[in-house]
Amino acid sequence: MLIHEDLLFPAEPGTRKIAKALYEQVRTLPVISPHGHTQASWFAKNEPFPDPAKLFVQPDHYVYRMLYSQGVSLEELEIGQTELKDPRKVWRIFASHYYLFRGTPTRIWLDFCFQELFGLEERLSDKNADHYFDIISEKLRTPEFLPRALYERFNLEVLATTDSPLDSLADHEAIRESGWKARVLPTFRPDSVVDPEFDGFAGNIARLGEQTGDDASTWAGYLNALRATRTRFRELGCTATDHGHPTAQTANLSTAEAAELFRRVLTGNAAPAQQELFRAQMLTEMARMSLDDGLVMQIHPGSVRNHNRKVFERYGRDIGADIPSPTNYVDALRPLLDQFGNESSLTIILFTLDESTYSRELAPLAGHYPCLRLGPSWWFHDSPEGMMRFREYVTETAGFYNTVGFNDDTRAFLSIPARHDMARRMDCGYLAKLVSDHRLVEDEAVELACDLAYGLVKQAYRL
Amino acid sequence: MLIHEDLLFPAEPGTRKIAKALYEQVRTLPVISPHGHTQASWFAKNEPFPDPAKLFVQPDHYVYRMLYSQGVSLEELEIGQTELKDPRKVWRIFASHYYLFRGTPTRIWLDFCFQELFGLEERLSDKNADHYFDIISEKLRTPEFLPRALYERFNLEVLATTDSPLDSLADHEAIRESGWKARVLPTFRPDSVVDPEFDGFAGNIARLGEQTGDDASTWAGYLNALRATRTRFRELGCTATDHGHPTAQTANLSTAEAAELFRRVLTGNAAPAQQELFRAQMLTEMARMSLDDGLVMQIHPGSVRNHNRKVFERYGRDIGADIPSPTNYVDALRPLLDQFGNESSLTIILFTLDESTYSRELAPLAGHYPCLRLGPSWWFHDSPEGMMRFREYVTETAGFYNTVGFNDDTRAFLSIPARHDMARRMDCGYLAKLVSDHRLVEDEAVELACDLAYGLVKQAYRL
Amino acid sequence: MLIHEDLLFPAEPGTRKIAKALYEQVRTLPVISPHGHTQASWFAKNEPFPDPAKLFVQPDHYVYRMLYSQGVSLEELEIGQTELKDPRKVWRIFASHYYLFRGTPTRIWLDFCFQELFGLEERLSDKNADHYFDIISEKLRTPEFLPRALYERFNLEVLATTDSPLDSLADHEAIRESGWKARVLPTFRPDSVVDPEFDGFAGNIARLGEQTGDDASTWAGYLNALRATRTRFRELGCTATDHGHPTAQTANLSTAEAAELFRRVLTGNAAPAQQELFRAQMLTEMARMSLDDGLVMQIHPGSVRNHNRKVFERYGRDIGADIPSPTNYVDALRPLLDQFGNESSLTIILFTLDESTYSRELAPLAGHYPCLRLGPSWWFHDSPEGMMRFREYVTETAGFYNTVGFNDDTRAFLSIPARHDMARRMDCGYLAKLVSDHRLVEDEAVELACDLAYGLVKQAYRL
Repeated sequence: MLIHEDLLFPAEPGTRKIAKALYEQVRTLPVISPHGHTQASWFAKNEPFPDPAKLFVQPDHYVYRMLYSQGVSLEELEIGQTELKDPRKVWRIFASHYYLFRGTPTRIWLDFCFQELFGLEERLSDKNADHYFDIISEKLRTPEFLPRALYERFNLEVLATTDSPLDSLADHEAIRESGWKARVLPTFRPDSVVDPEFDGFAGNIARLGEQTGDDASTWAGYLNALRATRTRFRELGCTATDHGHPTAQTANLSTAEAAELFRRVLTGNAAPAQQELFRAQMLTEMARMSLDDGLVMQIHPGSVRNHNRKVFERYGRDIGADIPSPTNYVDALRPLLDQFGNESSLTIILFTLDESTYSRELAPLAGHYPCLRLGPSWWFHDSPEGMMRFREYVTETAGFYNTVGFNDDTRAFLSIPARHDMARRMDCGYLAKLVSDHRLVEDEAVELACDLAYGLVKQAYRL
Repeated sequence: MLIHEDLLFPAEPGTRKIAKALYEQVRTLPVISPHGHTQASWFAKNEPFPDPAKLFVQPDHYVYRMLYSQGVSLEELEIGQTELKDPRKVWRIFASHYYLFRGTPTRIWLDFCFQELFGLEERLSDKNADHYFDIISEKLRTPEFLPRALYERFNLEVLATTDSPLDSLADHEAIRESGWKARVLPTFRPDSVVDPEFDGFAGNIARLGEQTGDDASTWAGYLNALRATRTRFRELGCTATDHGHPTAQTANLSTAEAAELFRRVLTGNAAPAQQELFRAQMLTEMARMSLDDGLVMQIHPGSVRNHNRKVFERYGRDIGADIPSPTNYVDALRPLLDQFGNESSLTIILFTLDESTYSRELAPLAGHYPCLRLGPSWWFHDSPEGMMRFREYVTETAGFYNTVGFNDDTRAFLSIPARHDMARRMDCGYLAKLVSDHRLVEDEAVELACDLAYGLVKQAYRL
Repeated sequence: MLIHEDLLFPAEPGTRKIAKALYEQVRTLPVISPHGHTQASWFAKNEPFPDPAKLFVQPDHYVYRMLYSQGVSLEELEIGQTELKDPRKVWRIFASHYYLFRGTPTRIWLDFCFQELFGLEERLSDKNADHYFDIISEKLRTPEFLPRALYERFNLEVLATTDSPLDSLADHEAIRESGWKARVLPTFRPDSVVDPEFDGFAGNIARLGEQTGDDASTWAGYLNALRATRTRFRELGCTATDHGHPTAQTANLSTAEAAELFRRVLTGNAAPAQQELFRAQMLTEMARMSLDDGLVMQIHPGSVRNHNRKVFERYGRDIGADIPSPTNYVDALRPLLDQFGNESSLTIILFTLDESTYSRELAPLAGHYPCLRLGPSWWFHDSPEGMMRFREYVTETAGFYNTVGFNDDTRAFLSIPARHDMARRMDCGYLAKLVSDHRLVEDEAVELACDLAYGLVKQAYRL
């Protein structure tokens, strides 16, 4: 077997027993995936997924960044190719380097998927690469492996995608119109129209205005267009927005100052500090709109995007070369919090890539301001140790109820059950430790296990 | 029972057994509380404590910041009211939200207090809120619950308060004159007269001068007034000073520069950088005076005070909205250390709210400079995980003997036994781990357990 | 016994059993020490080591900084004296303060050495100080304790020293010519000729040019002299360079800009920012040369050197008063990585003294860029907890194969077996934890244990 039934539970037998009992309470709860990067089109079209390489290697940064770091070229892996020339060859390269993933969460997600979905039970290696390739290819052609069938098999209750305001959401509409009873919901991610450094920023804004019939070249028209687009998203079930800025900086300019800043960034000639100020101001504008329309805000700063210049020039954005940087929250969020921090009808979920902020800034902020909640450990940190650190560093100050459960944040649809299972196991292990040393009583731990796996995410994202 | 006898001990049975044996050695040692925020007036007047809400909810940031973060308003909790209109109602709100404290140290402190002091054994909830309220109210009216009786019951050997140089210390004098054999000692906390951003700074300094008969409008007179006030404190048993600056910045100006800077900050027109420089210079001045008069210095930088603007405007300072910020020591302390760092007759105790500095800056500094010691994990970090991290991050570089035992830093007098008990349990658990994996031998662990619980604090604070 | 056979293994019995089994596989593997500060002259001359004080106290920062921090003066310890006046007295001071090292790795290294090399089995204290002194002194005079005999007894396969480009390497040559079959290799550490703040910088460069016959007063001649000196090192077996800059800053100037900057720093009148820029540029130049000649680069930024002004003025450099500071990699390394980051034939090993960078910057960088590898936890962090944190913080993102095994970085030759043994124990303990909770299977753990103890360091340093 690739996945042991006691996977990730604490080694101490008494604690393990508690963890297993807790896990039994949450193992089969429905999965809510409130933040991720799957494609609505998969479910709209419901066509078979392609071959194993296209499915497991090409879309998964976690996979190919590790291979790349050890000297496998992106060319060999056919990264960036729409159609793979030789998927079996890519798969063999991956299989022969599978040992590189020892000790990583990727290894666990993949093994879970190989075993639970494809019935494979022997560790992947160069020796069985072809066998794996054949088995997976074969199953992918069966009806049980169509996207909608998998959605149901995964026990998903909600699956949120991440979408540009410029997206027509036609796929979401198609899903809805198809009569399929599933909740695949869009998320409003406005980077392309609020970040002056985004490719084609001014053109994007013009398009946004055209879509809504507003004159988006004025500050007021631009805000109206954003409001109208949020409404369009909400009508298709969207409950949240998502903001991935370089920093957590917020601002609270007067209308006149904001309008003037907008005018300047729209020219394309704004200095970097003005571009940063504009992004900062837009977080506050988004909070203001959220107070009106009830969308939950997600802010996840602190990634230096496209750090590898040559890879970016050749392959473009989002190619696994985003590197975290030190992130300040305590000063950066203050302008927004001065304005809206005490609104308990507003929900802002904060994420971080800088673990030193957990106990220093994030837990104290979320443990005080009514509008703030903490997103789970994520991206590089949605791993066993990362999840345990998150709980150990934030719970004592922020408690459990200022956190919002798990999200998988993944492009790899097939890894969703594995990722949620890992989070449930780790949370049960953490709770078991608290029971073992008598910080919690077992009945409370059961209630918490269910809240962490299901209740909190549903409540926080207003689902 | 609310508190299990094995509370907080390591789960692994062999290690737990060692921890329990160590704990038996320190459980009943006298409690020294060298840093906190209880009121001398309680012991001077020895009047009954008021109702449960006034006692447990109103003064405790840890309690009401959590409630506030989850949407309970400060109005409902009657924060800021001298007399509570409906203490039972406040108590019920608190009780019905008691589940929010799961996993926090506050929960343990409260449970400990409910059980050990009031004999309550059923977990607080909305169901038993009134029962709790009645039992606690009743006991508070008995002689056993008067402040002096509790001091004795708590096995306190020393209890230090925190006092402004402008305080007459009349309550401390009254305690002394009462003949009651207890050591309630003042601590010299000069923020109001060394921080140009403190409310009424110039007026405070004028008052300071009036108190001592010095012309405090001159640099020399100001320093004389400080010296004289320190002497007044020392005559009432004070052994330490306490400095809560935004940063750890120190400076070492010439007398002429310092005098000129003093003149400018006194006008109220100094720029923020000059205000910061003045605070920095005053740390060095305080160190100089400590070399003369033997007072131990405590420096705890890194809190952004009154972060919540609206709460500050309505409720004032110290309302649970201080948020930690990244803190530098390695450069900031250098001017002071250049001057006095090698004086082994000087003791400076450093605290932090930025755990990333434990292994990076604080342990290396304290493991080298003769004048430096490390204060315990505190404020947001005086929690089980926080205490364990403190030991794990600093011991290997600074050892045990450059640390100074525990302090409770609390306004909540009734929580003092619980807090010291927690620290003793965690330290015994840490030592047990070192014994379990053979880094220490048991006889050394016993000696260390006693030093961490009692010996080091007595020595460091010169008690 | 001073060292228990289960030293440092996890307490949980099942996990301990796995750890011990893994340790048995690596315990006797040859020791590769690719980075350290032993002296080639010891092996060239093969003379007896002097007395215990000179051997254990005087050269070991870890030892005397702890004593100093607790009020023992450097005078008493005869630090800085070439000949000790009263080594027995120094030893007694050390012995009577041995309790200060409780909980530190120094204690374990020393105990290991006392027991394994000198057969001492009673804990050092003031009571047995003289006995220790006599036994050690006696043994040091026997042939078994000559440097070469110890090298063999220590099962060393490679021992790298750290050497200035201005060093003649005569000792290395002498070792080679002696016919002794051992690999004592130089490492190219160019601080004295690439850091404009280094004592005698301009003179050092002039000497460098004289050595190679280049006109080192020009940019091209200077680079040629460096290249030629690297060749000289390589001819004596050198496989690596070592760069200890204050920050990780790199730069990528044009040749003209670099030449002009060189001209300015050579005058001695460059501003601090220009000196920093020059060091930054030189890291990129060193990377360029490494691409040509295959030397592995080691970069270890983040130490504020000679932090204690008075100690520096009296005793000079490297006296245990270097304090870590916050260190940025994500921005600082970018100029170098833009140029050479995607070269998989280049190896750059990154070290840190700022543990907050492990998961935030270092693991993500090494988990992506083909040229980057992570050096082990070191200096203040080459301790049990430090080693465990290193694995827990980096493995999940960077895996095991982007790390490079252990190095001891020590001046204390006799501590080498103890240090490598500690690293092997801790790595086996970490792997055992992964096996215990089923993240790894035992056969993989065995392979990894051998790689971490032996394989990775050999490969990374090209030995």
